[in-house]
Amino acid sequence: MTKHPLDTFFSPRSIAIIGASRDGTKIPGMLLAFLRRNGFSGEIYPVNPAYDDIEGLRCFASISAVGQPIDLAIVIVPARAVLGVLNECVAAGVKNAIIISSGFAEEGGASVDMQTEIAALAKRTGMRISGPNAEGFYNEPERIAATFSPTVDVKPDAPRLLASPRRIGIIAQSGGIGFAIYNRAKAMGVAVSKVISTGNESDLAAGEFLDYMVRDLATDVILLFIEGIRDPAMFVAAAKRAAKSGKPIIVSKVGRSSAGERAAASHTASMAGWTAAYDAVFAKYGLIVSNDLDEAVAIAAAFATAPLARGNRAAIVTVSGGAGAWVADTLAGEGLQIPELSGPQQVEIRSLIPSYGSARNPVDITAQAVHSGGLQKVIELLNRSDDIDLIVVVVSLASETRIPVKTDEIKPLIDAQRKPILFFSYTLPSQFARTGLAASGIVAFQGLATLGRAARQLIDRGRFVLDEPGTLLRKTPKGGVNSAWVEGNLSEYESKNLLREAGIAVPSEVLVTEKSALAGAIAGMPFPLVMKIQSRDIPHKSEAGGVRINLTSLDEAALAFDALIENARRFKPTAQIQGVLVGPMAKKGVEMIVGTVNDATFGPIVMAGFGGVTTELFRDVVYRQAPVSETEAVAMVDELKSSPLLNGFRGALPADKAALARLIAQVSILAGDLQDSLSEIEINPVIVHGEGEGVTVIDALVAGRRSAQ
Amino acid sequence: MTKHPLDTFFSPRSIAIIGASRDGTKIPGMLLAFLRRNGFSGEIYPVNPAYDDIEGLRCFASISAVGQPIDLAIVIVPARAVLGVLNECVAAGVKNAIIISSGFAEEGGASVDMQTEIAALAKRTGMRISGPNAEGFYNEPERIAATFSPTVDVKPDAPRLLASPRRIGIIAQSGGIGFAIYNRAKAMGVAVSKVISTGNESDLAAGEFLDYMVRDLATDVILLFIEGIRDPAMFVAAAKRAAKSGKPIIVSKVGRSSAGERAAASHTASMAGWTAAYDAVFAKYGLIVSNDLDEAVAIAAAFATAPLARGNRAAIVTVSGGAGAWVADTLAGEGLQIPELSGPQQVEIRSLIPSYGSARNPVDITAQAVHSGGLQKVIELLNRSDDIDLIVVVVSLASETRIPVKTDEIKPLIDAQRKPILFFSYTLPSQFARTGLAASGIVAFQGLATLGRAARQLIDRGRFVLDEPGTLLRKTPKGGVNSAWVEGNLSEYESKNLLREAGIAVPSEVLVTEKSALAGAIAGMPFPLVMKIQSRDIPHKSEAGGVRINLTSLDEAALAFDALIENARRFKPTAQIQGVLVGPMAKKGVEMIVGTVNDATFGPIVMAGFGGVTTELFRDVVYRQAPVSETEAVAMVDELKSSPLLNGFRGALPADKAALARLIAQVSILAGDLQDSLSEIEINPVIVHGEGEGVTVIDALVAGRRSAQ
Repeated sequence: MTKHPLDTFFSPRSIAIIGASRDGTKIPGMLLAFLRRNGFSGEIYPVNPAYDDIEGLRCFASISAVGQPIDLAIVIVPARAVLGVLNECVAAGVKNAIIISSGFAEEGGASVDMQTEIAALAKRTGMRISGPNAEGFYNEPERIAATFSPTVDVKPDAPRLLASPRRIGIIAQSGGIGFAIYNRAKAMGVAVSKVISTGNESDLAAGEFLDYMVRDLATDVILLFIEGIRDPAMFVAAAKRAAKSGKPIIVSKVGRSSAGERAAASHTASMAGWTAAYDAVFAKYGLIVSNDLDEAVAIAAAFATAPLARGNRAAIVTVSGGAGAWVADTLAGEGLQIPELSGPQQVEIRSLIPSYGSARNPVDITAQAVHSGGLQKVIELLNRSDDIDLIVVVVSLASETRIPVKTDEIKPLIDAQRKPILFFSYTLPSQFARTGLAASGIVAFQGLATLGRAARQLIDRGRFVLDEPGTLLRKTPKGGVNSAWVEGNLSEYESKNLLREAGIAVPSEVLVTEKSALAGAIAGMPFPLVMKIQSRDIPHKSEAGGVRINLTSLDEAALAFDALIENARRFKPTAQIQGVLVGPMAKKGVEMIVGTVNDATFGPIVMAGFGGVTTELFRDVVYRQAPVSETEAVAMVDELKSSPLLNGFRGALPADKAALARLIAQVSILAGDLQDSLSEIEINPVIVHGEGEGVTVIDALVAGRRSAQ
Repeated sequence: MTKHPLDTFFSPRSIAIIGASRDGTKIPGMLLAFLRRNGFSGEIYPVNPAYDDIEGLRCFASISAVGQPIDLAIVIVPARAVLGVLNECVAAGVKNAIIISSGFAEEGGASVDMQTEIAALAKRTGMRISGPNAEGFYNEPERIAATFSPTVDVKPDAPRLLASPRRIGIIAQSGGIGFAIYNRAKAMGVAVSKVISTGNESDLAAGEFLDYMVRDLATDVILLFIEGIRDPAMFVAAAKRAAKSGKPIIVSKVGRSSAGERAAASHTASMAGWTAAYDAVFAKYGLIVSNDLDEAVAIAAAFATAPLARGNRAAIVTVSGGAGAWVADTLAGEGLQIPELSGPQQVEIRSLIPSYGSARNPVDITAQAVHSGGLQKVIELLNRSDDIDLIVVVVSLASETRIPVKTDEIKPLIDAQRKPILFFSYTLPSQFARTGLAASGIVAFQGLATLGRAARQLIDRGRFVLDEPGTLLRKTPKGGVNSAWVEGNLSEYESKNLLREAGIAVPSEVLVTEKSALAGAIAGMPFPLVMKIQSRDIPHKSEAGGVRINLTSLDEAALAFDALIENARRFKPTAQIQGVLVGPMAKKGVEMIVGTVNDATFGPIVMAGFGGVTTELFRDVVYRQAPVSETEAVAMVDELKSSPLLNGFRGALPADKAALARLIAQVSILAGDLQDSLSEIEINPVIVHGEGEGVTVIDALVAGRRSAQ
């Protein structure tokens, strides 16, 4: 690993505990006890003027009294004393500090200021600070327990179940959850590199820790629990780096509901933020979203033990017919194929199992074939098969005396697995079985739904491609942004002009400002026409009686002109009217919505969805952090549940998805280029015509910069 | 409990093991060993001519040699010997038998016949038979282990974790899954009454076992794992009885995917059947469907420990802010409300927790307040509150030395809980913690998603009402069913006539058979008109050019008449044409589909869904076993994800849901009354008008009896 600023934080050679105590039942005492019990091999300097020594260690009256280089100070003193202690740390040349103490931003009031001062101190002095209100970290390979979490309160030399060849790193904006993930991963036999609880993030925040984990050679898979990101630029850069290097990140984001948001706010003073923006960023960089604790751990476990799947064809090998059927349903529910095996394969398998088994797939080898060694032979056969991309082995691991595989036979197979081989136990695995399987590098899954989700991710991850936008000709509008409308909405006419200047195709329409100009304007336009009132003060034209469609003659158009002007005046007497926009009616097609919005945390986000009721009823919209390439835009559209509507649904002609994707990409680039001036672009609707026939922007609304959501 | 035919099966006072063995590592030996080790207190008669005794028990050469009354024989001999053994059992007066041996229907070929003979023997002699290919049962309260499942291979006198005051009964068409459920429930501390693995069900089938469990006073909650029901009438009657008595049934049905179906078929020779029909029956009788093992157990655990919830307002009490936020998101995702607590409640709570906690809801008491006793006081307060219907307590139970509650204080509260109080541990609960909580009657949930599902079910169950159809005037069509069309489809005209005779409102239309009759037919009809060709041979009229709409004059109608006849002749020269159906165009409204289909297992099923693309894209249809009442039909419609479309969506007027419900109920009754003659009724579309304005049956198709799906 190349050097990282946080190396001395996560791998300190010397640790001071400021506020150390002899009372092992309270947090200050636990910190020292856990650090020693887990076998930290560096120097430990307890600091507390009340003691001369603690359990055989010399205790110092102050940090300055130590007189040795200190990589990390763990601070557990009353909140009001923290700032003074930190200043002493700086004076003593301490490189990093973790503030365990609570009573800062999460408490509100004057306590917020104390945290602000801590942040300023870190910035001013360069000493890196984690917390306050943090639970610390655990570095498992190096046995550094800089935390009071009871989950690292181990019996010395208790064997650690280690089944996975790769290690997961855990970053959590909640110590409870971070170490709960550690606790659950450990129980499964999944190896862990580091667990960090980020607390209130006065200085070091989740994005920077993510950067560390992404670069950390000891970390192969990352599990992230977040409430709100405070260092989005760092976070996005780290996520992008992970996407490029192929290191999987599983993320659980809370604050999705109003109650969850309330909880996060009062907890570590996090701003949960607009969830869709988070999901837009996660999707862009291939972060795997999981909203369940066991599911997140199961997915991490799969990545820590299995290669990616090259396709979605699964084989199920089971000792129980019922359990095999249930696994089949579960995998099928996740969109996996469970193809019937080929004739020759079935013949070969039948020679390995009893007559009342089944070789079709699920392969029901029956309990009998476990004893005869048939289980391993079937796995071997399927591992070689080109028809199968993933194998799920369904067994019962409840026994305290026997396991269904022989380590010396299965281990070479697992070590050389060409495709994921996942073991699921329908009974709860005994510790005996977990230990026995761990010796073969096997993690046993015990959740059915979570197994299915994990299998799905091994397939999807194999397909993820990080896409770089920029293939488009970038045309920033010549006029730049007119300061006159920076605070409000543009009219449709102005909005379309802005899009046109950016190189986006909009229909040929004419703004008619005087009735006398109408005849000239529509000369040569094909009937029927559509006419729409234009005013920045009337963003919703229909409800103002401001739209007329299907006009088939100049006379009709002239009558419409008067009516539109009159309706607008009646609707909003103060409205500044620019005129009436006149153009031909658009051809038929599929109605969609494309838009962008500036998120306070992540900047411009682009969205796409179908017009009509499905979007609203089924929340069938998709978001991505802008800008996106055309390829990524196609991926976005394909994610919509209603996407079959574009693919020739019910005998309709396939729609021009390429043109739609181009529009989405162009709009996303425009939103990015003009993010300092624009807050929103909404194209609603855009009509997508048949393949090769393009799209028509029916209506557009551009909003100037304002305080973002 | 009143006497039940299966009393001597589940509570035998004497058991013979035919094929008993001294080898405790093989199934025959395990059966005897497990029976004794679990402490069966009745008589045990091993039968095997090869031994004089087995481990101190006298062994008999044959069942007839026993010479004592035998309630239950467990048969584990080669498949070909089974029938002979059963005949001996009958001769010896054995009341019940379980055939453990495999090699019958699941093997196919001649082995199927052997099973048929077993079924015939049971029917002829009255001896009740479970299996073959069964794994037996375990009666936990009476300690009767009539099974070789390793999950009952206990150390004698090992303490059983018992937290729940109520017991769950488990019926499974897979021994592996049945005992896996037992294994998982036991680990949680949930008490079990009986676990039965039903095997191939030659005689005793799942429906009859369900009947037993529903009546069994030792069983409070039922967990069902099924592949396909062989005794549907018994099953439905038992489900109905459970619904009436309020005993919850959780059901997991596999074979939902084609691979799952294949697995079930080759496993216990089950027919998985049409899944929608199963779901239609489950929904009707309030069975709770779960497609996940842990989820099913969690739901059962909730019912075994908590009362039903009276509403959906949840309070979360947590020692970890992050975990509390995650639980809040999870419950909100299940549709629960997590209301902010009232001012006075917050004031009271704040006096019990540190300043950096939160009293809003989630109530973050912080780890600190566990030690000060605040946790229990807050639970007590919320248990008394009229603003809250359900409480989730979020704790960490990883410690091997401490639990966050005091049994003597919490137990009285739990025993007298007025609303569900569910405990969730974000770390994995230690055995110490499970044991400590069990003493207070608390089961700790460890799955986040499954906790959410369980909470949801406690709410939904409180709302379930078993509805009896029959409030409608039942008018069976006078003419009964015309044998001439029993094998095929009726035309729209005939179909509508059948509906009309059954008392269902259909539009006033006229069948015009000669062009000359057209003018007379439409006299007095309001324009515009719709005209449709009528022929049993053209079920899809549109694709035959057989529909004309928006006809505004007699002239147009006359031209249309000729065109319709000509199109039909060209489309299908052999078609028997009945004429042209003429009527006024219907008023606008919401398009829906209502239909019925006869399922091979459960008979007529009624379905409802929206017209248009959403039904197909989102599979947004709902099924119920027919007949249904109007109340139940409203519940069906409300289950549709698109149901807001009927409730005044986006400013539209609310639709006439009552009229729609009446139609669904009427159609369902008709399908039930005529199930021997009809196979299908499809009303597609029916237009639902505004409230009080009824529905219009636009098109209808009735199909005569044919082999059902």
